[in-house]
Amino acid sequence: MVQEPMFDIAQLAHIEIYSPKLEESVAFFKDILGMDESHREGKSVYMRAYEDHYHNTLIITEHHEAGLGHIALRTTSEQALERRAAAIEALGCGIGWIDGDVGHGRAYQFRTPDGHKIEILWDVDYYEAPEAERTPLLNRPQRRPNRGVPVRRLDHINLLSKETDKNMAFLQEALGFKVRERIVADDDSSIAAWLSVSNLVHDIAIMGDGMGESGRLHHICYWYGYPQHLSDVADLLIERGYDIEAGPGKHGVTQAAFLYVLEPGGNRVELFGDPGYQIFDPAWKTIEWKGKDLEKAIIWHGSNLPQEFFNYGTPARTGELIK
Amino acid sequence: MVQEPMFDIAQLAHIEIYSPKLEESVAFFKDILGMDESHREGKSVYMRAYEDHYHNTLIITEHHEAGLGHIALRTTSEQALERRAAAIEALGCGIGWIDGDVGHGRAYQFRTPDGHKIEILWDVDYYEAPEAERTPLLNRPQRRPNRGVPVRRLDHINLLSKETDKNMAFLQEALGFKVRERIVADDDSSIAAWLSVSNLVHDIAIMGDGMGESGRLHHICYWYGYPQHLSDVADLLIERGYDIEAGPGKHGVTQAAFLYVLEPGGNRVELFGDPGYQIFDPAWKTIEWKGKDLEKAIIWHGSNLPQEFFNYGTPARTGELIK
Amino acid sequence: MVQEPMFDIAQLAHIEIYSPKLEESVAFFKDILGMDESHREGKSVYMRAYEDHYHNTLIITEHHEAGLGHIALRTTSEQALERRAAAIEALGCGIGWIDGDVGHGRAYQFRTPDGHKIEILWDVDYYEAPEAERTPLLNRPQRRPNRGVPVRRLDHINLLSKETDKNMAFLQEALGFKVRERIVADDDSSIAAWLSVSNLVHDIAIMGDGMGESGRLHHICYWYGYPQHLSDVADLLIERGYDIEAGPGKHGVTQAAFLYVLEPGGNRVELFGDPGYQIFDPAWKTIEWKGKDLEKAIIWHGSNLPQEFFNYGTPARTGELIK
Amino acid sequence: MVQEPMFDIAQLAHIEIYSPKLEESVAFFKDILGMDESHREGKSVYMRAYEDHYHNTLIITEHHEAGLGHIALRTTSEQALERRAAAIEALGCGIGWIDGDVGHGRAYQFRTPDGHKIEILWDVDYYEAPEAERTPLLNRPQRRPNRGVPVRRLDHINLLSKETDKNMAFLQEALGFKVRERIVADDDSSIAAWLSVSNLVHDIAIMGDGMGESGRLHHICYWYGYPQHLSDVADLLIERGYDIEAGPGKHGVTQAAFLYVLEPGGNRVELFGDPGYQIFDPAWKTIEWKGKDLEKAIIWHGSNLPQEFFNYGTPARTGELIK
Repeated sequence: MVQEPMFDIAQLAHIEIYSPKLEESVAFFKDILGMDESHREGKSVYMRAYEDHYHNTLIITEHHEAGLGHIALRTTSEQALERRAAAIEALGCGIGWIDGDVGHGRAYQFRTPDGHKIEILWDVDYYEAPEAERTPLLNRPQRRPNRGVPVRRLDHINLLSKETDKNMAFLQEALGFKVRERIVADDDSSIAAWLSVSNLVHDIAIMGDGMGESGRLHHICYWYGYPQHLSDVADLLIERGYDIEAGPGKHGVTQAAFLYVLEPGGNRVELFGDPGYQIFDPAWKTIEWKGKDLEKAIIWHGSNLPQEFFNYGTPARTGELIK
Repeated sequence: MVQEPMFDIAQLAHIEIYSPKLEESVAFFKDILGMDESHREGKSVYMRAYEDHYHNTLIITEHHEAGLGHIALRTTSEQALERRAAAIEALGCGIGWIDGDVGHGRAYQFRTPDGHKIEILWDVDYYEAPEAERTPLLNRPQRRPNRGVPVRRLDHINLLSKETDKNMAFLQEALGFKVRERIVADDDSSIAAWLSVSNLVHDIAIMGDGMGESGRLHHICYWYGYPQHLSDVADLLIERGYDIEAGPGKHGVTQAAFLYVLEPGGNRVELFGDPGYQIFDPAWKTIEWKGKDLEKAIIWHGSNLPQEFFNYGTPARTGELIK
Repeated sequence: MVQEPMFDIAQLAHIEIYSPKLEESVAFFKDILGMDESHREGKSVYMRAYEDHYHNTLIITEHHEAGLGHIALRTTSEQALERRAAAIEALGCGIGWIDGDVGHGRAYQFRTPDGHKIEILWDVDYYEAPEAERTPLLNRPQRRPNRGVPVRRLDHINLLSKETDKNMAFLQEALGFKVRERIVADDDSSIAAWLSVSNLVHDIAIMGDGMGESGRLHHICYWYGYPQHLSDVADLLIERGYDIEAGPGKHGVTQAAFLYVLEPGGNRVELFGDPGYQIFDPAWKTIEWKGKDLEKAIIWHGSNLPQEFFNYGTPARTGELIK
Repeated sequence: MVQEPMFDIAQLAHIEIYSPKLEESVAFFKDILGMDESHREGKSVYMRAYEDHYHNTLIITEHHEAGLGHIALRTTSEQALERRAAAIEALGCGIGWIDGDVGHGRAYQFRTPDGHKIEILWDVDYYEAPEAERTPLLNRPQRRPNRGVPVRRLDHINLLSKETDKNMAFLQEALGFKVRERIVADDDSSIAAWLSVSNLVHDIAIMGDGMGESGRLHHICYWYGYPQHLSDVADLLIERGYDIEAGPGKHGVTQAAFLYVLEPGGNRVELFGDPGYQIFDPAWKTIEWKGKDLEKAIIWHGSNLPQEFFNYGTPARTGELIK
C-alpha cells in the first residue's frame, strides 16, 4: 500500500501584495473588481470580494516597489496547524510564530526555497455584513456590489521561482499539495507546475522566473466563474484606461478562461471567467504538457499571451518590460 | 481542541439507476446529453460523460420499475477503504464485500438507514480514449462529442428519505460527509440536507420523502457549468418531446442554475448549468434556511418548481404523479 | 403586383412615462439599469442608456399616477414626416404639431384609437459625451457605466388596448408597421400583436387590456442582448428589495429572454436578455399562435408569468393588483 | 430637404461559394455548423441553417478553386426588383435576367465594379419542415439540430476588392446600401467599409485586397448570437482538426464577437457569437476609424488577427498563404 495523502492544508486564505501606489491599487480593486475595503491599518488596506467569507482575502501594503508580501494558507484543523508548523520547523525554513493579524489568529510563518513568505493559520475572523449589506441568499456573505464587474472570491496565486521543481517538491512534502499539471522540459524538469490541496486545479502555481530571480510574484487571481464577465470587465478596463495584458482567452492548462491586467501598482491580476474543470480523483495522475502539445497548453483558443507574460513579474527587474 | 475531520471519502464515483425502458433511457443520455456507452453486460449499460475520467459514472439497468440501483463512493486511499468498511461493518448496516464490477475492483456494500445501497471502493479503471477520440486538451479524457448538448461530468445525487436527520447523521458519522446547507423545520429537524466530502456544496443531498416511503431516488445530476447550455438543451428537450419538469432557474440553496427533466425510464435528471459556489472553509458553518427565507432557498430566480417536484420520486408510488 | 410597403417610420425614438415617485424611479433606472440623466426640466427627467445615440430615450415625468406619457417615433426622412402627419391628420386622430422638446425638433402628435399618445419627428439631438465619458469604441456613444448592470438601448414598448385589432390596423395603415406575430382567438381576432418597422420582431406590441380599460401601458423594454445580464441584474434587484414579477425566462413569441420588474413608480419594465431573432424577410407572414400552441408562445422555458402579468397595467385600476 | 433614402433592397438572401472539395465542405457545414442539405443538383449542394426561412442560404458548387460564385439580394417588393434591374442595366454593368434557380424565381444578375457577381430577386421558396422536424416554436422554421454547434442564420458577406471606395459607392448608388463604418486612410479613402440595407451593421463588407486582385472573397458569416457558442464550436473545431484562424475575440468595428475558420475548400467562414449592435437611426453618420483608433477597431479584446487575415482570400493567389 502506498502512503496515505496528507490533508493538513485546506485552502488559500489570503494574499498580501505590495504596491507603490496604494490608493490607486485600492481604487482598482474597488471600482473595477467591485471589492470592498474591510479595514485599514498602518500602510495596509484589507479587502475582500463579495463571496469571500473571511474578513479579508487581499492585503495591499504600501511599499517602494510592487511584489508579494505573503501568502496565507488555512489548515484543516488546529492540530494540523501544529503538525505542519513542527514539520516545517524541522525542515529548517521556518521564520516563526506570529500572534496574528487583522482577521486571523496566531500563524506560523516560513519561506519556500525560493524565498516566498507563507504563513499557515487556523483561527480566522468571518466577515459579518452590516444590516444594509445582507442578502436573502444565505450562502453569500453579503449582497452583490453595485459597482464595477464584481469578482466573487479569491482563486489562486502564481509564483515565479528560480527552480520550479525544488519549490514544487517543497509544497508537496511540507504542505501536502498535489501536482495537478506540469509543463515539462526535455529533461523532465518542470518549467511550470499547478498544485492544489482542494478540488481546484490549482491553489498555487509555480513558473520558472525568466529573469532568473527569486521570490517574485507572477499574478494573483480572483474568480468570476461566468465567461460573460470577462467581456464585461474588459469594457470597463479598456474604457477607463487600464491596459489588458492578455485575454479574454482560454488556457489548455486548467481550462481557465482568463484575462490578465496589471493593477496600478504593477502587480499582474488574473480574472478567471469560467468554472474551468475540477479534480475529484484522489489518485490524479499529473497532466504533463511538452513538445507539440505546449501550444495548446498555453492557449486553447482566443487571445495569445505576449512575450511580457513570460518575463514580467513583481518586483520588476531592470531590462524587463515595466509598465 | 475539537476532533479532526475525517478525510476517508473522496468523491461520488458512479450511480446505478433502474429503468423499465432501457434503450429509451440510453438514447436520452446519449443523444440529448451527449454521453457515451462504455460497455454493456447483462441487463446493464455503462455510460460516461466526456470529462468523466473513469470507465463509467452511470449504469442503467433494466428493471420492472425506475429507481436507484446503488451509489458508489471512492475513498481517498486503500487504507481509507479498509477503515470505512470496518467502521460500517461495526455499525451493523453492512452488506459485505464484492469482488468488483465493470470499471472497478473490490467494493464494500452497505445500506443507509433509509435503505439506499452504497458501495465504497478504491480501485477504478480509467477511461482510455481510442485514437480517434483523443484531444490535445490533455486534461480532458476525450474530445467533446458532436451530439446533443453534452454534459461534462457526474455532479451529485439527491435521495428521498423517510427521516432526513437520521440519514444525514449516518453520512456524517460513517463516511465523513459535512452538512453544507439545511432546510430546517420549526423543531430544528432537517427537511432537506446538502452534504459533501469535496469542495462542492453537495455530493449527496437528502430530502424528506413526501410519500413517506424509504429508499427512493429524487434525482441524479450531471454538470455543464455554463448557463447557456441549459437554454440550449431546453431547446433539444422541448423540440424532441421530452417534458421539462422545471427550469432553467436558479436555486438559492447551492446557488445552482438548474433544469429538471424526467428521463424516459421515469427517473428525474438535473442538469447543472453554472458553477454554483464552492466551499473551501474547513470549518464551514451549515447554512440554515427556514421561515421567510425558504422561498428564496428554493428559487432564487427564474422557473418555479411544480408540486410534483416535492412528491415524485422513483420508484413512483400509487397516488403520485407518474409521467 | 401587390402594393409596395411603406417605409416612412424608422424606429421607436423615445418614451415618456409618468411616475408618482419621480426620484425613486430615476434612482431605479440610474443605479440598477445604469442609465444616465441627460437633463431635467420642470417635472421631467430625461435619461438614456449608454448605447442610445440620441439625447434621451426615456422621459420620466412626475404625475399623480403611473402610466404612459407619450411615445415618439422617428421617421425615415423629413419628407416622410410630412407625409405621415398629413395622412394622420386626414384620419382625424391628430392632435397637432408641437415645436419640439428637449432633444428633438418639431413633432406631430396624435392618438391611437385606444388613446395612446404618439408623436412622430425627424430632427433629433445626438448625445455628445463629455471628454471623460468617451470611449475608443467609436460606435458606442459613451463608455460603459460602472454602476448597476447597465442596459444598452431602448428596445420596445408594449401597450394595453381595449381593441387589439383596431389599434393594430391603425399602426399598419397609418404608420406602416408590419404584424410579425399574433396571439389569435377562436374567432381569429387578435388577443395580442407584435409589430415593427425595423428588423426587430417588435418595436410596439399591443395586448388586450384585461380590465377593459383604454390607453394603458403594459411595459417598456430596455435591451441587454446577453443572457448573463438577466441573472446579474436579478441579483441586484432581489438584494436591493425590488420585486421581480417574472423571469428570467424565455418567451416563444419573439424568442425573448425576459425579466419583468415594476419600477418604483409602478410601471412595468422588461429587460431583454438575448438577441431574440430578427426578421429580414420583406414578405414575412405573420406568425399566429392559438390553441395548443399558446402555452409555448407565452413561455418557451424557465419562469412562468403570474396572473398579475395579464391584468396589471399603468395607471393601475381598482380591483387590480397594485404593488 | 435632402433626398429620401432608397428602400429597394431588403436583405442578403443567399451566397454561392466554390469548393474544390465539395463533400468535405458540405460535411463541415453539416457536422460542425449543424446546417442541413436542402437539395443537390449538378455540381451544387444547397444548404440552410435552422433559423433560415428560405429554401437555402448557401450553395456550395464544386469548382477547381475556392471562391465566390455569386451573392443574392432580395428586394423589398416586385416593383423594387424591376426598378433596380432597370437602374443597373442603365449603369452598364448588368449581365441579364435568369429564369430562376433552385429556391427562387427570376433574378437579375450583374457585376460590381470589382467583378463580384450579384443577383437580385423577389420570388423565393420557403423551407417547409417535414413533420418530424417541426417545432412548437412557430417562429423557427425547424427544430434545432442535434449535431455540431448549430448556426442560426446567414449573417453577412465580406468581399475583397481592388478599390474599396468605388465598390462602396456602387453599392450605395445602385442598391441603396448605407455605409455604417469605414476604416479610413490618411487621404480619406476607404481601406474597408461595412454597409447594410438592414438594421445590421453590415450585410456586405468590402475590404481592400492585399494582393491587388479583383473579385475575391474574404469570408462569409453565419450567426449564433450567443457568446458561449463560439467557445463550444472552438472545441469541436480544434478537436476535429480544423484550423481556427482567429478567435474567439471581439472586433471594435461592428462590435462582433468573432471566430474565423477556413472550411475544407479553403474559403474563410466567420461565426458571429454575440448580437453586436444594431443601427436604427435613419440618419446614421458613418463611423470612421483611423490613426490611433485603428487598433481598437480591429480588436476590441481577445484574440488577435494573424497577418494571413489581411492577405488571404479565395481564390488564393500564388505567394499567398494557402492552407
